[in-house]
Amino acid sequence: GVSKLPNVGTTIFTVMSVLANEHKAINLGQGFPDFPMSEELTGLVCAAMRDGYNQYAHMNGYMPLREGLAAKIEELYGTIVNPDTQITVVPGGTYGLFTAMATILHPGDEVIVFEPAYDCYIPTIEIFGAKAVRINLQFPHYSVNWEEVSQRITERTRAIIINTPHNPTGSILRAADLQQLQTLVQDTGIYVISDEVYEHITFDGERHESVLRYPELMERAFVSFSFGKNYHCTGWKLGYSVAPPALMKEFRKVHQFNCFSCDTPKQVAIAQYLNNKDAYLQLGSFLQAKRDYLQQLLTQTRFEPLPSKGSFFQLYSYKNISDETEAQFAQRLVKEHGVAVIPVSAFYQDDVNNGVVRFCFVKKEETLEAAVQKLIHL
Amino acid sequence: GVSKLPNVGTTIFTVMSVLANEHKAINLGQGFPDFPMSEELTGLVCAAMRDGYNQYAHMNGYMPLREGLAAKIEELYGTIVNPDTQITVVPGGTYGLFTAMATILHPGDEVIVFEPAYDCYIPTIEIFGAKAVRINLQFPHYSVNWEEVSQRITERTRAIIINTPHNPTGSILRAADLQQLQTLVQDTGIYVISDEVYEHITFDGERHESVLRYPELMERAFVSFSFGKNYHCTGWKLGYSVAPPALMKEFRKVHQFNCFSCDTPKQVAIAQYLNNKDAYLQLGSFLQAKRDYLQQLLTQTRFEPLPSKGSFFQLYSYKNISDETEAQFAQRLVKEHGVAVIPVSAFYQDDVNNGVVRFCFVKKEETLEAAVQKLIHL
Ligand SMILES: CSCCC(=O)C(=O)O
Ligand SMILES: CSCCC(=O)C(=O)O
Repeated sequence: GVSKLPNVGTTIFTVMSVLANEHKAINLGQGFPDFPMSEELTGLVCAAMRDGYNQYAHMNGYMPLREGLAAKIEELYGTIVNPDTQITVVPGGTYGLFTAMATILHPGDEVIVFEPAYDCYIPTIEIFGAKAVRINLQFPHYSVNWEEVSQRITERTRAIIINTPHNPTGSILRAADLQQLQTLVQDTGIYVISDEVYEHITFDGERHESVLRYPELMERAFVSFSFGKNYHCTGWKLGYSVAPPALMKEFRKVHQFNCFSCDTPKQVAIAQYLNNKDAYLQLGSFLQAKRDYLQQLLTQTRFEPLPSKGSFFQLYSYKNISDETEAQFAQRLVKEHGVAVIPVSAFYQDDVNNGVVRFCFVKKEETLEAAVQKLIHL
Repeated sequence: GVSKLPNVGTTIFTVMSVLANEHKAINLGQGFPDFPMSEELTGLVCAAMRDGYNQYAHMNGYMPLREGLAAKIEELYGTIVNPDTQITVVPGGTYGLFTAMATILHPGDEVIVFEPAYDCYIPTIEIFGAKAVRINLQFPHYSVNWEEVSQRITERTRAIIINTPHNPTGSILRAADLQQLQTLVQDTGIYVISDEVYEHITFDGERHESVLRYPELMERAFVSFSFGKNYHCTGWKLGYSVAPPALMKEFRKVHQFNCFSCDTPKQVAIAQYLNNKDAYLQLGSFLQAKRDYLQQLLTQTRFEPLPSKGSFFQLYSYKNISDETEAQFAQRLVKEHGVAVIPVSAFYQDDVNNGVVRFCFVKKEETLEAAVQKLIHL
């Protein structure tokens, strides 16, 4: 048996979290909150289990949840999606992306991805025998050069993967980007795979430019969302995918043989909790305060911030501190200084080293404070 | 975009459950209990959520759960498996099979499957560009003709899928079957994919012949298990896969980009609940009583039982009642007589019609009684 993914090791998030535990380091690596989630929501899950919602949910998701999501999408993005034919509840945003790629990719297809790229995109492309066509986002703003994208499109281009707000950089796509993308793909057979798991987390008054706002993009898009990111429960592994009916029909053919259906009591609970709009509408300002707090704390160090416009993350340059590679620097930070961060080079196939690491700020204030204390003497 | 699965419609389980709801029929179709699960176990999930276990679990599963599973496997099957390298917690048995096939199948490979086949096997083979080589189990005992298997093995045979206890027929593989399989695959590169989600549900003193009992099979096997089936919570979509270290390493490369990790609070809860051995050790006798009760009730009708040695299911012949096809008969039963069952023809690619339908007996006594009442005048 020849490995399908000979070059894949364990994901950087697991590597760094394991190192963080081993070295009792403060974990600003993997993107998860270290504070409690809503007790109202966990209470709703307990009630659902008590009420007997423990058997298979509908394959495509618990209908009241899908209906609530359709209403939310209409309110947020002004787009009408049919919960019956366009929304499928899935076990997490990553699974939504994997299943979308399983649905459309054939051996020999090309998929355009931007680097740094969230670590699942390229291996998933390769699992289905397709080829990643990699384009660098432009340092230090990590913006897309659409002219370059246009040049890299070929007859074999099957899809373009976008991610906004962007992991790991915290950059976002703006309306002009989505319009350029629309111009590039219209009248082609190219699909758009849009990773929008941080949809609610934009800063400084920036609006989230969901693909769902753009009818001509949407008609060729699979969009992946996450309840874990919205409700501070990354360990629940629940999300949803949206696509036009014809694409969703094919997506569901794969989904029904991959996971088939998702956790019933959590779907029942979230269906009710969707009414609590503040839970997601205030997420951006809640996290902006955390971004700002970390940034203010880090002024005591020689780390230099890059812009972060959304997500759980901000990149910092350590060029004033060291000329090690990002991997070396991150290893030293976790082992000798007790702080885990993520080297951005882990999100590139080639050896790109801009001297920046990713800090995750979805943490308690005291966690951020304690971490920065350990970095002050650097 | 050409569909990857042009012939796949919605799974028969969803079709029949939706029809059952529409016609307010009693649902003896889809395999799920209609009685409450353990309150102790749901209580443990609530406690885990309250205790803050709501963020990402380890990619391969919560370690105390994997350790408990390794201990259970040793006790049940006399086999030592390493929880660090050989067990991965997954979102359900179906996902474990899908991910195993994603790991090993390449376009052009052949996979031997027995029909009737649980409905995910063949489409999953096809998603990865491989070809299903179908062999009929021998009516009416649904036993394997190993001589025929031997003849159908070619240079392209990548894997053989077995399923014991068997869905939909309730047949089981015995020690002699596993030995024959071992003889066929030893010294070949053929993998074994073993669907053992009903491991605890065997009847009449029969022992479950897990692949895990057979070291020479195990060294080439992916085995798929289900907590949903063990604990009457099919809607929790949680299970685990076992494989030798080298295969599990590759499986995890796919898993980390498919679902990445599984529900944390449920893993924490089940890790504790594993101590309650009666919960799974008594499952066989609990379900044998249900099988027997349904069979006794159905003596009042013209349905004729086929043998069921395990699983949630028993096949019944309706030849004394009608000469319709199984699909026609099942449609009429749900629409006109208010009882949903599953036509066994749905588990074949070709039009095989033995005049048998599958009854699911993991139901309350009054449910079985009410269903049979509706069938008496047939
Ligand atoms: C799926 S584990 C990684 C969590 C995450 O999204 C991140 O840290 O980037
Ligand atoms: C995954 S839904 C089907 C449940 C089941 O295993 C069956 O009814 O056969």
